[in-house]
Amino acid sequence: MTEDYKRRLTGLARDITRTYTDIGGINRIGETELPSLARVEGILQNLLTMAFPGYFGGRVNPRTSMETFVSSHLDEVFVDLSEVVARVLRFSRREDIPAPRLPDCPEDPDCPEIDTLAEQLTLEYLETLPELRAMLKRDVTAAYEGDPAATGPDEIILCYPGLLAVAVHRLAHPLYQLGIPFVPRIMNEWAHAQTGADIHPGARIGPDFFIDHATGVVIGETTVIGRGVKIYQGVTLGALSFRKNGDGSLKRGDKRHPTIEDEATIYANATILGGKTVIGKGAVIGGGCWVTKSVEPGGRILLRSHAD
Amino acid sequence: MTEDYKRRLTGLARDITRTYTDIGGINRIGETELPSLARVEGILQNLLTMAFPGYFGGRVNPRTSMETFVSSHLDEVFVDLSEVVARVLRFSRREDIPAPRLPDCPEDPDCPEIDTLAEQLTLEYLETLPELRAMLKRDVTAAYEGDPAATGPDEIILCYPGLLAVAVHRLAHPLYQLGIPFVPRIMNEWAHAQTGADIHPGARIGPDFFIDHATGVVIGETTVIGRGVKIYQGVTLGALSFRKNGDGSLKRGDKRHPTIEDEATIYANATILGGKTVIGKGAVIGGGCWVTKSVEPGGRILLRSHAD
Amino acid sequence: MTEDYKRRLTGLARDITRTYTDIGGINRIGETELPSLARVEGILQNLLTMAFPGYFGGRVNPRTSMETFVSSHLDEVFVDLSEVVARVLRFSRREDIPAPRLPDCPEDPDCPEIDTLAEQLTLEYLETLPELRAMLKRDVTAAYEGDPAATGPDEIILCYPGLLAVAVHRLAHPLYQLGIPFVPRIMNEWAHAQTGADIHPGARIGPDFFIDHATGVVIGETTVIGRGVKIYQGVTLGALSFRKNGDGSLKRGDKRHPTIEDEATIYANATILGGKTVIGKGAVIGGGCWVTKSVEPGGRILLRSHAD
Amino acid sequence: MTEDYKRRLTGLARDITRTYTDIGGINRIGETELPSLARVEGILQNLLTMAFPGYFGGRVNPRTSMETFVSSHLDEVFVDLSEVVARVLRFSRREDIPAPRLPDCPEDPDCPEIDTLAEQLTLEYLETLPELRAMLKRDVTAAYEGDPAATGPDEIILCYPGLLAVAVHRLAHPLYQLGIPFVPRIMNEWAHAQTGADIHPGARIGPDFFIDHATGVVIGETTVIGRGVKIYQGVTLGALSFRKNGDGSLKRGDKRHPTIEDEATIYANATILGGKTVIGKGAVIGGGCWVTKSVEPGGRILLRSHAD
Amino acid sequence: MTEDYKRRLTGLARDITRTYTDIGGINRIGETELPSLARVEGILQNLLTMAFPGYFGGRVNPRTSMETFVSSHLDEVFVDLSEVVARVLRFSRREDIPAPRLPDCPEDPDCPEIDTLAEQLTLEYLETLPELRAMLKRDVTAAYEGDPAATGPDEIILCYPGLLAVAVHRLAHPLYQLGIPFVPRIMNEWAHAQTGADIHPGARIGPDFFIDHATGVVIGETTVIGRGVKIYQGVTLGALSFRKNGDGSLKRGDKRHPTIEDEATIYANATILGGKTVIGKGAVIGGGCWVTKSVEPGGRILLRSHAD
Amino acid sequence: MTEDYKRRLTGLARDITRTYTDIGGINRIGETELPSLARVEGILQNLLTMAFPGYFGGRVNPRTSMETFVSSHLDEVFVDLSEVVARVLRFSRREDIPAPRLPDCPEDPDCPEIDTLAEQLTLEYLETLPELRAMLKRDVTAAYEGDPAATGPDEIILCYPGLLAVAVHRLAHPLYQLGIPFVPRIMNEWAHAQTGADIHPGARIGPDFFIDHATGVVIGETTVIGRGVKIYQGVTLGALSFRKNGDGSLKRGDKRHPTIEDEATIYANATILGGKTVIGKGAVIGGGCWVTKSVEPGGRILLRSHAD
Repeated sequence: MTEDYKRRLTGLARDITRTYTDIGGINRIGETELPSLARVEGILQNLLTMAFPGYFGGRVNPRTSMETFVSSHLDEVFVDLSEVVARVLRFSRREDIPAPRLPDCPEDPDCPEIDTLAEQLTLEYLETLPELRAMLKRDVTAAYEGDPAATGPDEIILCYPGLLAVAVHRLAHPLYQLGIPFVPRIMNEWAHAQTGADIHPGARIGPDFFIDHATGVVIGETTVIGRGVKIYQGVTLGALSFRKNGDGSLKRGDKRHPTIEDEATIYANATILGGKTVIGKGAVIGGGCWVTKSVEPGGRILLRSHAD
Repeated sequence: MTEDYKRRLTGLARDITRTYTDIGGINRIGETELPSLARVEGILQNLLTMAFPGYFGGRVNPRTSMETFVSSHLDEVFVDLSEVVARVLRFSRREDIPAPRLPDCPEDPDCPEIDTLAEQLTLEYLETLPELRAMLKRDVTAAYEGDPAATGPDEIILCYPGLLAVAVHRLAHPLYQLGIPFVPRIMNEWAHAQTGADIHPGARIGPDFFIDHATGVVIGETTVIGRGVKIYQGVTLGALSFRKNGDGSLKRGDKRHPTIEDEATIYANATILGGKTVIGKGAVIGGGCWVTKSVEPGGRILLRSHAD
Repeated sequence: MTEDYKRRLTGLARDITRTYTDIGGINRIGETELPSLARVEGILQNLLTMAFPGYFGGRVNPRTSMETFVSSHLDEVFVDLSEVVARVLRFSRREDIPAPRLPDCPEDPDCPEIDTLAEQLTLEYLETLPELRAMLKRDVTAAYEGDPAATGPDEIILCYPGLLAVAVHRLAHPLYQLGIPFVPRIMNEWAHAQTGADIHPGARIGPDFFIDHATGVVIGETTVIGRGVKIYQGVTLGALSFRKNGDGSLKRGDKRHPTIEDEATIYANATILGGKTVIGKGAVIGGGCWVTKSVEPGGRILLRSHAD
Repeated sequence: MTEDYKRRLTGLARDITRTYTDIGGINRIGETELPSLARVEGILQNLLTMAFPGYFGGRVNPRTSMETFVSSHLDEVFVDLSEVVARVLRFSRREDIPAPRLPDCPEDPDCPEIDTLAEQLTLEYLETLPELRAMLKRDVTAAYEGDPAATGPDEIILCYPGLLAVAVHRLAHPLYQLGIPFVPRIMNEWAHAQTGADIHPGARIGPDFFIDHATGVVIGETTVIGRGVKIYQGVTLGALSFRKNGDGSLKRGDKRHPTIEDEATIYANATILGGKTVIGKGAVIGGGCWVTKSVEPGGRILLRSHAD
Repeated sequence: MTEDYKRRLTGLARDITRTYTDIGGINRIGETELPSLARVEGILQNLLTMAFPGYFGGRVNPRTSMETFVSSHLDEVFVDLSEVVARVLRFSRREDIPAPRLPDCPEDPDCPEIDTLAEQLTLEYLETLPELRAMLKRDVTAAYEGDPAATGPDEIILCYPGLLAVAVHRLAHPLYQLGIPFVPRIMNEWAHAQTGADIHPGARIGPDFFIDHATGVVIGETTVIGRGVKIYQGVTLGALSFRKNGDGSLKRGDKRHPTIEDEATIYANATILGGKTVIGKGAVIGGGCWVTKSVEPGGRILLRSHAD
Repeated sequence: MTEDYKRRLTGLARDITRTYTDIGGINRIGETELPSLARVEGILQNLLTMAFPGYFGGRVNPRTSMETFVSSHLDEVFVDLSEVVARVLRFSRREDIPAPRLPDCPEDPDCPEIDTLAEQLTLEYLETLPELRAMLKRDVTAAYEGDPAATGPDEIILCYPGLLAVAVHRLAHPLYQLGIPFVPRIMNEWAHAQTGADIHPGARIGPDFFIDHATGVVIGETTVIGRGVKIYQGVTLGALSFRKNGDGSLKRGDKRHPTIEDEATIYANATILGGKTVIGKGAVIGGGCWVTKSVEPGGRILLRSHAD
């Protein structure tokens, strides 16, 4: 390398370094650490292993004591998740991100009460797991009953990205409900990257839910979905437009996404938008439809074939 | 951790463990092991390396004897795939999953004949590889001739997810045809996660096939595709609705997905549904079209621009 | 294994090996090595770490000297990228792939001048980084201002695949502009596999760009996008049809993809095609629209709800 | 590679393969698998973690429930060691290696009773662990009291190879006593490679034992060592000569190695040989001494300095 | 697993857990963490890479800027070692292990001044590196000049365990001199495990030092070695006996190990003991000798061949 | 970090960098690369796998074709070792290290003939393997017949460091004989680190050789050992003193180490020195003996027990 190149590289390093001061906000240097993606993914893998032992997390040897197996995974999640939750709560407190139930400790920058709260929230969360197993079993059954190509529950659990996306959502949603920032979103983006389905952890989804093929599905934060709903690839349950505050900034927190009632079916690439849009019980939305108004229970919205 | 928390965690472990008995069917504990995803992926990598040596599986040193190179990969696949196939056949037999040609050994739960059958099927499968190389070469050429942005075959093989999805399908489909459960589906879901294209291993696809961009493509189990067909991102070749048996359960095995004849082109996000729908030779289906009826050979179905 | 099987496997190895001669063009055996995907991904990770230190590449310890941190990443990228660029330039020269500014060294097959050129191009490229940081900051802000579900810049950088896709594009595009083949395409396909958004490195994209949800987005090579544009999942900015040369081969290099002017918004699954199609300043293209003609500045193209 | 080289390599492969038939006994091809070194090392790491939690196996988080921690390691060892023991018992049965308590199942080549026996032996073994912890504590104390350079128990556990060699011996010896072949020897060779001290798992060693520096220590199979003994690097407790059977083969099983009584000290590089040699209580053997006869209690055997 | 076995394993877990309370001192649960061996080894690898670039730490690319290369390794060591040193100082303070210069902060259990002190000590340490490079060069030369089997400096650096042991000692000794506990001992035990030579970091060793073959060498804490000394495998420079305090405990800190003056040579397996023993300048101690008294400058102590 | 510390670290980096120029010879920056230890170790593992298939390199599946197995390992070694040999030959040529048969290509600095020579030497080397398998079998038998503690050949191959040291020597020695520098020494140091036995690859060792316990054994470059020799831990077969050239430098290449005739036995920690020292056929050298003169065939040199 010539001396000239060395000089240019040295100057360049200085210029880039200067941008860390000049252009802040997209670098975190020596600040409160955010939870690492790898760590949250590790927690998720442990949760999936408890949810579907023998499918996730490798074979379970017949000599294994299942109670020890569960205790050990549970303990690992408790330890890791408590730390991650404490970290994001601490971070929220400093950055004024809303996180309900933050302890009031104005004088102590470290606020040790946050550790206690984090343990408490983590335990509350973990205690939803037994009930969640029942939900997941129903989702697997719904998938099997909904797809003639499926050969059985094993194929559903091993090979259906839709089931994975739903399972991760069911694991992430209670964290969202407890007001824990970031962590459920990281889980949902992990599933999004794996499956192509982007289900915001805020969405409320009833039992017996089935997504087939999964790629391109988007389900927004304030979506409400009933029991026995079935959706296909490319379906968007989205916002119609965003309301603004007086200062022109976006209104956050509104119900912006639709409500899908029990047993509705939404075929591939349909788009349903708007917080007041309700797809009634048992309605069918045909593939490729664009729906921004409510549909009666039992209604059928279908495109005419372009080949007519 | 307080004693109270310890007690709650212990109780919780017991509750979760109890669900493994109460809510069965989504846990496999000490049962016949299913093939691990990692192992099937390993087999697939070896197959891709034999199919595209020097592109997959690292550089091939000029001193390497190619015959030894192939023998060694072939042997590894033979050993691994025989074991995986034997495992899934054994599993199918117990769970009554249809797998043609299962040996009849009613008295022996282990049925050693299955090992022999697995070797035989594996060898039959591997003997399709030389012909498959010719198919893959044609797919690469079709991609190059179909995309003006492509700079050459190297870019196609290294950077086109559509080519990867098609190549994995070509490797998975003969396993499906031999009646081997799970394994081809695991291969196809691996490719789906990599590329966003979900091609069921049952689909029958002719030569010179090109998928551009790939994300969101869904090709159903009973689809039939001719020679020289070209499809784009987001295209669904799907089922219109499912027929049911007398007891209300889904009819499995019917032709539910369309037939696409030679040299047809289907543009982005078009949806073509139904087992009787035939897109005739050389027909063009415009982007975003919704087609549930057959289209004549040479027909053109196009949306009018919404900007008109 | 029986002797018969051994014989068949040996014969098969010979047959497959023979296809490496008979069916060339999809195997590279002992030839100029192409850049490995893993190596280009490593370069990209280093670039992302310099772009977003503390978000990518792990925590930055408060004791770290940032100038040393940057120098060290910069040096590593300089060394690696110079080698990769030299390799692809050498390769382009042999295969007649267009790469501007190739040195003229007809007599020497190794053309050592290529190493010097590679260093020069790499340094030119790296010197765009400080300015690029400013662009990325604006993209993060645009995302935050464009999505009411976002809780802040940290969530954008950690959890928005759209931001990742745009950031990788901003890192890949200058390499494309310098005429370096393959490398920017490998970067873009890496991002495509992670995020589901396929942005060709040739696309020219203005500041304050936001893609929400990302899956299924396709932005073609000759697309031009202005300032403050916002697009959603499943949007295609594609080619209408390809022009051919006299010999029937595709014309490569034409402007085939649309122009999107400042502050336009394009909702989910809309498709905009054609090199002469211009979406005017501030125009809004509704979800699911199919647009092949230009739209006036401020125009609004919306589907009527199929539920009307 | 020239054709001639290819031919020579092919011929050579054939010649080497032929030696697997012609020169048997040093290749195991498709036979009963022996326990892998890596697996036994994994078991050993789990045992060391239970023995010294927080020193081996990484930090123990204060939120961890220690009972779950132990249960989980114990269960893992039970599962793994049962399998390894079953494998070596099966192997011993076929190769006529003495292993006490082998079940009598002459008709079944797989002898399923071996699995039951393996579980039983493994559990018997594990039940020695609580007592073993007490022994290890005494060894740590003995080391601290025996070396003025030691700064405390932490340094002993982290930095004294002699302690590691003794700890592994204490974990391996009960397996030897239960008549399990190979496994304790693999453990002892693992420690030998780490520490340079080769303690045969058959040696019987009393409490409060300290080896300083460790390299080159050899302690033979039938050695008996009392309480509070201290030895230094390079000490051999070996056999004098081997007795032979009538046919000239070596007599195996005899007491061939010395007895060291309580509180004896043996300095660096001393050699003590012979099954009848007894080093009496509290005796001191000077560095470099060569001892093949018994030494009285309290005796002192010292070399005169060669510098006299 | 039978219910009886489950019960026994559960009881056993409880028994082992109980020993963590009953038999303390050999478990660290939720306490101040000690530095992990892996982390200290990482620091050592970085130091060796700066000491012998291109031999340790992989190839150095000719395009690399060496100043950036060094800065980056230096910075990494500064960050890591500061943290490790802070941790051991904090630990020493609680456990009353002597560590000179500990800050006086009786009221604050965390004593933040320790972080400042750790940085200061680390920097002081690192500033010895340039001089240390000169010492290492002399050691390499001494090895080459001392062994007729050596083919050159490359072989010395790559293949001589004695050189590795000496280099690690030279890197560990200044940490010992700065009064930092544990860290230098962990370095020395790492080298001991690699090379078989156990050089206590307290030993003071002059330049041009050569150890051939290395296995079994022991050099005690208070040894002093002059310039140009040469020793061979199995040599012990040890203590004769330990002095005790009034209460019977060992006196720690005394000079217990010999002094070896310039240009002395000590052949294989010789043992030299005692804090007052001086091997005079240029003396030669023959292999296998046992020396507990001083030897004159130029003296020669040789065993008569036992074959005489 | 304070500004003052930053300045000191920057200055320090500059000072260390300067030593790379000022104190050369112990840094290799951008020069001919030496073979990496990891690569030579990889070659050695492949060789050991061919030598002891099923013991080294993992289990051999019964379905594996052994000829393919060997071909594939052989090919990998041929490719890797040819490159490594070419590299060291090129290096020797530049540094004037003696390497017989170097081609004469004074004008071309790269000397392409070296690649041809490297392939030729590698093939010559590999063709010794079949015969070497016979030698290894005899070594295993000698070990079993020499140690009453051994339970069978499996234990010898898995657990005897002496066997490993001898096997690596047998693989390294032919490379030494072919005049290839460095590579055999790296192999021997790998074995030394694993086993504690340092056997110079130049030593000539006859069949049926057994080393028990191995730690501390040193066998010098010009040692000659006959058939059926047995040695124990800590034995040195070394040089007495080195002859010098007129200029004071060491004479390299002389026979400096002893000759051990058939069936001699040398017990633990004995030292035998000198190029003219011959231990006659069947002689026995007792443990701890110091021998610098020849011993008659059948002679017995024993220490009197210091306990007499």
